[in-house]
Amino acid sequence: MFTFGRLRDKHRCFPAYLVMKPEELSRASGPGVTDFQPGDQVLPVFTGECGDCSHCKSEESNMCDLLRINTDRGVMLTDGKSRFSIKGKPVYHFVGTSTFSEYTVCHVGSVAKINPAAPLDKVCILSCGVSTGLGAALNVAKPKKGHSVAVFGLGAVGLAAAEGARLSGASRIIGVDLNPSRFNEAKRFGVTEFVNPKDHKKPVQEVIAEMTGGGVDRSIECTGNVQAMISAFECVHDGWGVAVLVGVPNKDDVFKTHPMNLLNERTLKGTFFGNYKPRTDLPGVVEKYMNKELEVEKFITHSVPFTEINKAFDYMLRGEGLRCIIRMGD
Amino acid sequence: MFTFGRLRDKHRCFPAYLVMKPEELSRASGPGVTDFQPGDQVLPVFTGECGDCSHCKSEESNMCDLLRINTDRGVMLTDGKSRFSIKGKPVYHFVGTSTFSEYTVCHVGSVAKINPAAPLDKVCILSCGVSTGLGAALNVAKPKKGHSVAVFGLGAVGLAAAEGARLSGASRIIGVDLNPSRFNEAKRFGVTEFVNPKDHKKPVQEVIAEMTGGGVDRSIECTGNVQAMISAFECVHDGWGVAVLVGVPNKDDVFKTHPMNLLNERTLKGTFFGNYKPRTDLPGVVEKYMNKELEVEKFITHSVPFTEINKAFDYMLRGEGLRCIIRMGD
Ligand SMILES: NC(=O)c1ccc[n+]([C@@H]2O[C@H](COP(=O)([O-])OP(=O)(O)OC[C@H]3O[C@@H](n4cnc5c(N)ncnc54)[C@H](O)[C@@H]3O)[C@@H](O)[C@H]2O)c1
Ligand SMILES: NC(=O)c1ccc[n+]([C@@H]2O[C@H](COP(=O)([O-])OP(=O)(O)OC[C@H]3O[C@@H](n4cnc5c(N)ncnc54)[C@H](O)[C@@H]3O)[C@@H](O)[C@H]2O)c1
Repeated sequence: MFTFGRLRDKHRCFPAYLVMKPEELSRASGPGVTDFQPGDQVLPVFTGECGDCSHCKSEESNMCDLLRINTDRGVMLTDGKSRFSIKGKPVYHFVGTSTFSEYTVCHVGSVAKINPAAPLDKVCILSCGVSTGLGAALNVAKPKKGHSVAVFGLGAVGLAAAEGARLSGASRIIGVDLNPSRFNEAKRFGVTEFVNPKDHKKPVQEVIAEMTGGGVDRSIECTGNVQAMISAFECVHDGWGVAVLVGVPNKDDVFKTHPMNLLNERTLKGTFFGNYKPRTDLPGVVEKYMNKELEVEKFITHSVPFTEINKAFDYMLRGEGLRCIIRMGD
Repeated sequence: MFTFGRLRDKHRCFPAYLVMKPEELSRASGPGVTDFQPGDQVLPVFTGECGDCSHCKSEESNMCDLLRINTDRGVMLTDGKSRFSIKGKPVYHFVGTSTFSEYTVCHVGSVAKINPAAPLDKVCILSCGVSTGLGAALNVAKPKKGHSVAVFGLGAVGLAAAEGARLSGASRIIGVDLNPSRFNEAKRFGVTEFVNPKDHKKPVQEVIAEMTGGGVDRSIECTGNVQAMISAFECVHDGWGVAVLVGVPNKDDVFKTHPMNLLNERTLKGTFFGNYKPRTDLPGVVEKYMNKELEVEKFITHSVPFTEINKAFDYMLRGEGLRCIIRMGD
């Protein structure tokens, strides 16, 4: 049930938080691998889809029991061993895909076969944050035509959520960020208004409620900050508002709200990888790019050769740009 | 826009928390009343439907801006005055309907015209808790055939939620209550298993997760206790579980949970009057009774003449029985 793939393509996406990159499978081996042919073009995904568990069988969930993201397990599932070594010492796997490498071994459930014509130096960024934000809007928040949508956090994930809101026909997209340098970039992603919580004395949820006659129809939190999560929930309209949490919280964070905010018919949800099932749904996201519904180029602000990978870390830590492609072969 | 109605029927329901009863409109007057004819059979509802505000126009909300429950406003909306008096001193209105009275004046938006053949001494209980619980299941939690459902609190509201789960085809209905005397009664409402949190050392959400291989598909909280609200949320399955809060919390309660419980694709919602729009939808709930889909008799455990109304308060305070009918004319 494992694939052994050579990373034939020379481009890796460098996302802000999770390390994973595109790869093109050129060889497939191991017992039970029947879904792929050598040379198939695939994207590896940090969270897999075994196809057999209750989550994979559910129409709603993408949280595969077997291959759900696990940042601690550095080994293959069947034998608990690593497939990498340097001078006899094991090098451990990372988030199921181990893609800072020219060759990798991963479970078939962690690779999605995509359109062979898709340019990997672009669609590589669909393996994580961009699909997450897009799916958070299209699959979970599901804004209706004319709706108002607040997006908290204007990194790549938040901007992808804004893009999803725009594709859904939202009429107002309110971007919320503490970093005003994010606002200019965000205009290209359909964000129509901006709020910096630092510019206001009252809580940002109250500012948004005033701007929108009681609250937005949908909100999508893409910051990882628990205060922003609470604001994102409390800024949706009573009666029908839906808030979707995307950001990964800290271990000790507590989400707190008065239960009346729920009784007043608000809905609170969270999503993981935008509710996309990686193998089933990711090929369709790539198609959205291929038929020009979705622009991915605007998320790619930097590109560096592998030898300069530390520059990519610096961009990320400084919050500069959105996504950086690593050119493995340069 | 007001109706003036004589309570021709002599039966009032005495619900646990909110005071409201059926009434039969026999006269309608006041400018603008066109929806009712003298003699129409109606149910007054504690929360109204003006038909014009954004909530009434929304497909999802029933939280009318104008006539939403207001326990403090003891007067009519147009002139801020009461229509009741004793020896020249005003007697104030109560929750928009003021139905501990043979005659009442209320806004047309607070009365639902129902089937003229419906027996008011039965359907009177559909004006509040029973519809609330039923709607929490049918309109909000929406369990699918074969689903497992946990119901927290086995008062009339929780049992109506269980009834809704049963009507939806749920295969397991797990009743949770601190009061074991509720369990026997609950069997008649389709509850298949019982959990008393007092019987366990670990939190009840963990007990339920163990009983169900990871959590129930749906849970409905009908206690008003904030700890039960948190447990009801945390006991639903990741990936697809939906928890619905119905119980009215205390003023200073705080709902707390780790945000990862949301990120793992659980949904948290609250509902008010089971998301039924009172004027639009209540007649249909009465029809469910008329065509024998819904049994309301089993919710009616007591009946007292008006002169013994304090007995009804005692039953309620002791948690004895479910709903008590007040016979006004006896
Ligand atoms: N749920 C998932 O499956 C999934 C997948 C990928 C990423 N993520 C998470 O999504 C989040 C966003 O990822 P990204 O790559 O866009 O990150 P990023 O760092 O590029 O962007 C986050 C933005 O949020 C802003 N921000 C921080 N605190 C804020 C606050 N209190 N109010 C308003 N804005 C605030 C920052 O200024 C920044 O612009 C991260 O938490 C990441 O871990 C989740
Ligand atoms: N949202 C709405 O529109 C709406 C409408 C009507 C009633 N309500 C609320 O619904 C709730 C239930 O109403 P009811 O008439 O059925 O009340 P009830 O008092 O008859 O029943 C409540 C039950 O909950 C149990 N309970 C209390 N704390 C518990 C805990 N921690 N764990 C498990 N069980 C617990 C009690 O033992 C009791 O059996 C109340 O809070 C009421 O205010 C809400």
